[in-house]
Amino acid sequence: MDPVSHVDGDRVRTDLLDNAAFGAVDASDGRGRTVLTGSPADEAARNHLIEILESLGCTVRVDPVGNIAGRWVPPGGDPDAAPVAIGSHLDSVPRGGIFDGPLGVFAGVETIRALAVAGAEIDRPIEVVAFTEEEGIRFGRGLLGSSVAAGAFPVEDALVLTDDTGTTLEQRLAAIGMHGEASITPADWEAWFEIHIEQGTVLEEAMEPIGVVSAITGVSQGSFEIVGRADHAGATGMDNRIDALAAASAMIRALEDRVNEVVATDSTFATLTVGNLEVSPGATNVVPERVEASLDIRDTDPEVIDGLYEATRAIGARIERERGVAVTIERSQTVAPTELSGRCRDALTSAAGNTPPTLPSGGGHDTMHIAEHTDTGMLFVRSQDGLSHTPQEFSRWEDCTAAVQALVGAVTDIGSS
Amino acid sequence: MDPVSHVDGDRVRTDLLDNAAFGAVDASDGRGRTVLTGSPADEAARNHLIEILESLGCTVRVDPVGNIAGRWVPPGGDPDAAPVAIGSHLDSVPRGGIFDGPLGVFAGVETIRALAVAGAEIDRPIEVVAFTEEEGIRFGRGLLGSSVAAGAFPVEDALVLTDDTGTTLEQRLAAIGMHGEASITPADWEAWFEIHIEQGTVLEEAMEPIGVVSAITGVSQGSFEIVGRADHAGATGMDNRIDALAAASAMIRALEDRVNEVVATDSTFATLTVGNLEVSPGATNVVPERVEASLDIRDTDPEVIDGLYEATRAIGARIERERGVAVTIERSQTVAPTELSGRCRDALTSAAGNTPPTLPSGGGHDTMHIAEHTDTGMLFVRSQDGLSHTPQEFSRWEDCTAAVQALVGAVTDIGSS
Repeated sequence: MDPVSHVDGDRVRTDLLDNAAFGAVDASDGRGRTVLTGSPADEAARNHLIEILESLGCTVRVDPVGNIAGRWVPPGGDPDAAPVAIGSHLDSVPRGGIFDGPLGVFAGVETIRALAVAGAEIDRPIEVVAFTEEEGIRFGRGLLGSSVAAGAFPVEDALVLTDDTGTTLEQRLAAIGMHGEASITPADWEAWFEIHIEQGTVLEEAMEPIGVVSAITGVSQGSFEIVGRADHAGATGMDNRIDALAAASAMIRALEDRVNEVVATDSTFATLTVGNLEVSPGATNVVPERVEASLDIRDTDPEVIDGLYEATRAIGARIERERGVAVTIERSQTVAPTELSGRCRDALTSAAGNTPPTLPSGGGHDTMHIAEHTDTGMLFVRSQDGLSHTPQEFSRWEDCTAAVQALVGAVTDIGSS
Repeated sequence: MDPVSHVDGDRVRTDLLDNAAFGAVDASDGRGRTVLTGSPADEAARNHLIEILESLGCTVRVDPVGNIAGRWVPPGGDPDAAPVAIGSHLDSVPRGGIFDGPLGVFAGVETIRALAVAGAEIDRPIEVVAFTEEEGIRFGRGLLGSSVAAGAFPVEDALVLTDDTGTTLEQRLAAIGMHGEASITPADWEAWFEIHIEQGTVLEEAMEPIGVVSAITGVSQGSFEIVGRADHAGATGMDNRIDALAAASAMIRALEDRVNEVVATDSTFATLTVGNLEVSPGATNVVPERVEASLDIRDTDPEVIDGLYEATRAIGARIERERGVAVTIERSQTVAPTELSGRCRDALTSAAGNTPPTLPSGGGHDTMHIAEHTDTGMLFVRSQDGLSHTPQEFSRWEDCTAAVQALVGAVTDIGSS
């Protein structure tokens, strides 16, 4: 009768390996996949999920930005009760791993299976959800599907986003039959749970298979541009250059020093990343004229994030003075830190036998947007070497199983109340 | 009778503006052109030059890599004497300027005109030369035509070089009728002269219209690769990263400091340029795994170049130790510094009234290869703001005229001896 005992780790493993076939890439060690929104791999992964959900008796719907929800009403349950939703995303970064995203979706699938086999007496429907474009790779905006579902980003703005080829999200979704008309609304949910790999090493270092997430750090993304002057690399003496890449290097070094100071004194979770940098004209024999680089600043405290932006501006201004370049810093989008709800955290902690550690999430997750509208809980699963967004991303199957067991316990708890 | 007085600056200007029509590009300020080897613009420019040379009574020949030489035997001269050669190149970088290359070729044309009109009594034939693919843009190897003519690069290796579309140099040249059978051999020349824009600001700062080149700096190009580890930008703490871009920034900063020390103490002409840098995977929310960057090191002293390479290796080794990255440094091609011959320098200096300053050339030129086989001289013409490889490249017409006048004086001197 206990649904937790009916969680079958082999089924979860099979689901993840089956899903890993969509967009699979060659990798010498590990398993990787590239699943970009609207691609053939995405289409296949979505249709495969829908088939599984329908085979379990779910009613599946798709909303205008391609978010998928499958609703299962337990035998004897109340079809009109606010459901407990479980999910994550199916898209990946290029050459990403097979756990990041799908684990959270198929944890929901396994929850339905375990509840069904156990004949568990719960009232609330279960809703398994896969959000569109969580990674923001193809259309440049992460957490896209969940931000639209949560009303944080207008659906009409989302649908006209374009990819590198100028194709809109609407066109991409329509082409794979995933531009639906249904409504998927977090405010309708009693609660939301997401299982995700940690993507860090806190659990590994603590030798713990799973952990309950306390809060998701806020993230503020932006960019900086440095403009110098293109000159012939041989004919222009060192004292006569305005080298945009040398200036960018000085900037990145200073930013690294500054965030390390913040980590040492104010907040151990602060991060600042320059993940991309492009040089123009980018020729061996031409002094760089222009550099464009990305900025990604995170912390659980919004004031720490703001402080790091201020530091970035101050460093940029100093480099302008010292090197004669022009520095422009833009802050494009900010997602505030998210506290996860005590009710869901308690349910997860209790279901896991009161033993799991709590930890913050440095990565952003769809849960951030859902938390604006309902109670949310997140479980992290230990990541080998903290790796993610790579084929080397790996979590032990027994750790995944432990997470789904805790999830099923928590869902049974909240689904019965 | 003095041929120098018959140099006509208006003719030189007309030649350069006529040539500027081939591959002309839109530019809001200045005049630009894109002339890639084997393109329709290159074909038109070459045929136009050949017409002019033939109209002056030159015998024109084309060698297998498309180098063009037009030989003019002065009235009463010795057709079998070793000629004095004058030239440069007609190709350009994409959106390059109208002076870089063509000025040296049409200076040769104007020399023949001035000698002919003056009825100058010189013995040696004059040979006007346009070398193929000096810029190395289409087939990836700069100074291509002159390196083949000088025997430094085998003709058979040159002809099978391919462009971005997989088309060979031989195919491109054959398509425009410029895959000839003649021989163009610097060892046959009594001397070689090249006029080129400075591409720097030494003459502008000295307020001198022209300068005599003392030496061409050697150039050693290569690359470095830094491999760290890709991690999630939010989930991976600052103390747990192996960030390839942060390491590259530290490397570029250290290289900049090192070359500035060398400039201050050993050689004012040393340069070290990181002109291109590429980041993988290059995503806002992923800690950079890999950076590949270019290296361009120049000086008039090969030991200074070697010393800068050694310093690069030492800095790379230090950054490996400090940051846990793997650093690989490759040195792909080196062209030794070239001393220009005293005889030609003296002839140019004397022809210019003993007033022109001397200066080294930081850029590489076809003259580097010719200098292996015969006496060579180079004149630089003042460049506005030191700009080149851009439509803003500009040298005053009167400065160009002054250079051709000095050239004609020097050629008259050496052509009569």
